[in-house]
Amino acid sequence: MASPPYTLYFGTFVHLPREKSGLHHELAIHRGALWVSNDDGRIQGVDWSVEGHGGLLALVKSKGWVVAGTNTSEYGFSKKPRVRIVTADEEKNEFFFPGFIDTHIHAPQYPNSGLFGTLTLLEWLQTYTFPMEKSFQDVHRARTVYKQVISRTLANGTTCASYFATIHVPATNLLATLCKQAGQRALIGRVCMDRVDEATDYRDPSTEASVALNRDVIRHIHAIDPHGDHVQPILTPRFALACTEDAMDGLAALAADYDPPLHIQTHISENKNEVAAVEAIYGMSYADVYATHGLLTPRTILAHAVHLSDTEKATIAARGAKVSHCPASNSALGSGLCPVRSLLDAGIQVGLGTDVSGGYDASVLENVRQACLVSRLYRHTDASITDDEAQRLVLSVGDALYLATRGGAAVVDLADQVGGFDVGMSWDAQLISLGEKVSGETKGGEENRVDVFGTEDWGEKVEKWVWNGDDRNVSAVWVHGKLVHRREGLERYTTCGSSWGWIWGVGAVSIGAFVALRRLRG
Amino acid sequence: MASPPYTLYFGTFVHLPREKSGLHHELAIHRGALWVSNDDGRIQGVDWSVEGHGGLLALVKSKGWVVAGTNTSEYGFSKKPRVRIVTADEEKNEFFFPGFIDTHIHAPQYPNSGLFGTLTLLEWLQTYTFPMEKSFQDVHRARTVYKQVISRTLANGTTCASYFATIHVPATNLLATLCKQAGQRALIGRVCMDRVDEATDYRDPSTEASVALNRDVIRHIHAIDPHGDHVQPILTPRFALACTEDAMDGLAALAADYDPPLHIQTHISENKNEVAAVEAIYGMSYADVYATHGLLTPRTILAHAVHLSDTEKATIAARGAKVSHCPASNSALGSGLCPVRSLLDAGIQVGLGTDVSGGYDASVLENVRQACLVSRLYRHTDASITDDEAQRLVLSVGDALYLATRGGAAVVDLADQVGGFDVGMSWDAQLISLGEKVSGETKGGEENRVDVFGTEDWGEKVEKWVWNGDDRNVSAVWVHGKLVHRREGLERYTTCGSSWGWIWGVGAVSIGAFVALRRLRG
Repeated sequence: MASPPYTLYFGTFVHLPREKSGLHHELAIHRGALWVSNDDGRIQGVDWSVEGHGGLLALVKSKGWVVAGTNTSEYGFSKKPRVRIVTADEEKNEFFFPGFIDTHIHAPQYPNSGLFGTLTLLEWLQTYTFPMEKSFQDVHRARTVYKQVISRTLANGTTCASYFATIHVPATNLLATLCKQAGQRALIGRVCMDRVDEATDYRDPSTEASVALNRDVIRHIHAIDPHGDHVQPILTPRFALACTEDAMDGLAALAADYDPPLHIQTHISENKNEVAAVEAIYGMSYADVYATHGLLTPRTILAHAVHLSDTEKATIAARGAKVSHCPASNSALGSGLCPVRSLLDAGIQVGLGTDVSGGYDASVLENVRQACLVSRLYRHTDASITDDEAQRLVLSVGDALYLATRGGAAVVDLADQVGGFDVGMSWDAQLISLGEKVSGETKGGEENRVDVFGTEDWGEKVEKWVWNGDDRNVSAVWVHGKLVHRREGLERYTTCGSSWGWIWGVGAVSIGAFVALRRLRG
Repeated sequence: MASPPYTLYFGTFVHLPREKSGLHHELAIHRGALWVSNDDGRIQGVDWSVEGHGGLLALVKSKGWVVAGTNTSEYGFSKKPRVRIVTADEEKNEFFFPGFIDTHIHAPQYPNSGLFGTLTLLEWLQTYTFPMEKSFQDVHRARTVYKQVISRTLANGTTCASYFATIHVPATNLLATLCKQAGQRALIGRVCMDRVDEATDYRDPSTEASVALNRDVIRHIHAIDPHGDHVQPILTPRFALACTEDAMDGLAALAADYDPPLHIQTHISENKNEVAAVEAIYGMSYADVYATHGLLTPRTILAHAVHLSDTEKATIAARGAKVSHCPASNSALGSGLCPVRSLLDAGIQVGLGTDVSGGYDASVLENVRQACLVSRLYRHTDASITDDEAQRLVLSVGDALYLATRGGAAVVDLADQVGGFDVGMSWDAQLISLGEKVSGETKGGEENRVDVFGTEDWGEKVEKWVWNGDDRNVSAVWVHGKLVHRREGLERYTTCGSSWGWIWGVGAVSIGAFVALRRLRG
């Protein structure tokens, strides 16, 4: 059965507008309808004035559509375009939210999630990370891990991720193929690291190879996804301590060979000892190393940026490079408290990264929380910060959700494509369900761990989701308008056997709409 | 059907020994058997040499027991004591762990979990907290919220909690009754706050009432639980800014009226503005205010203790008062980074508190994580801290789990009763299940969010649980040897219809033991 040409989403929509008026980003909360063309997966229109099922059906009628699945004699032979309806159920405190964008995640490190002991960055790399990555010469192992990473990140609402893979071409190509198959947007980077490190045998065989091996990956990705709708290559010099100057120059030249230039990602200024080592080797600041070697471009993602000087921030802003803020990782490895507000003040675009497995959790939502927490603790790094200044540094829930959506979209150079519910954007979205409100009957966490008591407004419900939500609240995930994940439990709502039929029942209320429609006609 | 006199737990046991040899607490990981008398719920013995079902059955035989449920002709008329077997399934990466102790939680604030915006302590109290607590004059409302709090905390493995209630006697008594009914250990405190605050009408009617009203609560609790097996009263002066000196004196005298003296709980040194206000009013340090008014006793719980001077730490240590460390709350409200290592160095006993709803999560495990994170970030509060010193400040996973179990037990003055798997201790425990290892088949978080890949040792599995676990991993919870919570999904393991029958199958393997037993006899 062909998919209907339109999908009409109905219920509460929450996103972050592109613009803000004051210090903080404020949630935009709409109740109404939004429709997507299933040809290109883009949002064709919104109508926030639609109320109730009557309003919904009036909208359908005014558009000249007919609801898919209503194959009664009245509709069976209609030539009108069919529309599928997906409802966010108000009783279950459901809402649509843009998909999360994870701007920094090391896919092969996923099996090490939570394993870092009491180590800091440089020791942790040698002890946990390099041995794990090295094992990805085994493509079978890579397949098991990468499938799980994609499954987990989708289940956490990550519709787009910028992945570091390993140095291995076959496993990196496999990661791209698996993302494409799963329908997740992804930037895929083969890790480049040619600087000889006596402590590890995990490195590129030569500087030439460190650059040239990327061509195989680029070719593969362009072959499986010529328009880059899902997967794109991203050049990935690991960090200044792991790359030679020739390799950095070569990668910068390789990026510029393409139109538009290829994406680039690396690490910067994560840990003070690392910063000192970089300055000792190169005789210049960390940002200047990358600037000198052509790696600071408008399509560059710099992970961490915890200890940048004001001069470095200005350099990065001037080149238009972007930052991936990874608060869970920075706290776990004790790297430091990133002053996000100062990066934003400098005019740098910032997104969030899970940085698995320096970060212990593949969930962007966990990093929304950690971004809020770190911004509240930052004042304690400097006794001279006044109460007023401290308050300005704080990221609100809205600010952190902006970083997780619009901010991340800018970081992966998709600001006009994803991150919000603007007309023309791709329907990359999550259906969040907080569950029914607490009544006399208690629940002990089986369904999810957010408790709505019924007195909360929608802004407060979103705050509760941010602070206590997890993958259990992610009922469904779409990329390019296509369903790419749904919670297993939702099978109980399935109302027909066709491949897309379950969607009908996501909110269960759509059944009500169906019945209401028939009543309307009757 | 009467309960069998013994329960035999079999599988992997993880706890924190009372003593440590180096800087960090190390996990003790045992595989074997532990048995509990169902008369008093205490651990009667352990045998870490038991291997496999053969060993288990040999142990049963050597004890002169017969496995409950084996009502075949061979056993039906046996006079031998019966034993019920509960197995932690190795295939499902299950282990037994001591129940968590939440040393600081405001039960009535639970509906505000996650609601604090960008406010700090004193504004947050007026905006969110006092209006919520005031509503607990409605006992019906209190019942709905308190039932949910108890259900949620049990589901998160909290076997013992020290609760702040509200100023209301009926609702406070109800909380005690509900804890007793649910089988959760609890200290129950009516909040005392008689200092007139023009900004709120939520306060005790007078200083005399602030002291005297507690007698009603004490009487109720002593009536429903004469031996204090589950619930005990705890005197609860809110904090120095909310109590008059006369009230503090009166509460100290009331505590001393009892043998042993009553527990006391309050807040100390959470926020720098609060500390300054206390010193401005009283003309002395925060700790000295409590010392002067008799509130620092060996049964006193001081929540927060973020900004104490060394002198104050010495005062608290000398009086034997305890500290509840609430890292999630301190980060959420931007209160500060508590230097836990320095409290321990001063000889102060420390436990963990969720501090709902300054803390956003009723999970102690979340606070284990946050305690680790804050200890790693503390170095950044002071540029003069060297790498070596910084490393000493770090709490390992073992250290934080110690605080959550043994540390908390000391804080609630139950160090000899709960917090570990020592013979003679009460069986207050959780069965943690990490699920089967990841294979070719991916899972997207439906069961739980910990992924075991099969290469991890038990210490690493515990680390993964700490960093990615949640209530989904808590398969069962016992207090005093009695089952008080089990995950709903576990019904699928039920093997017989009797009220305790499900336990038989917790690990499913016990069925195997049953079969093995019959084979052994056959």
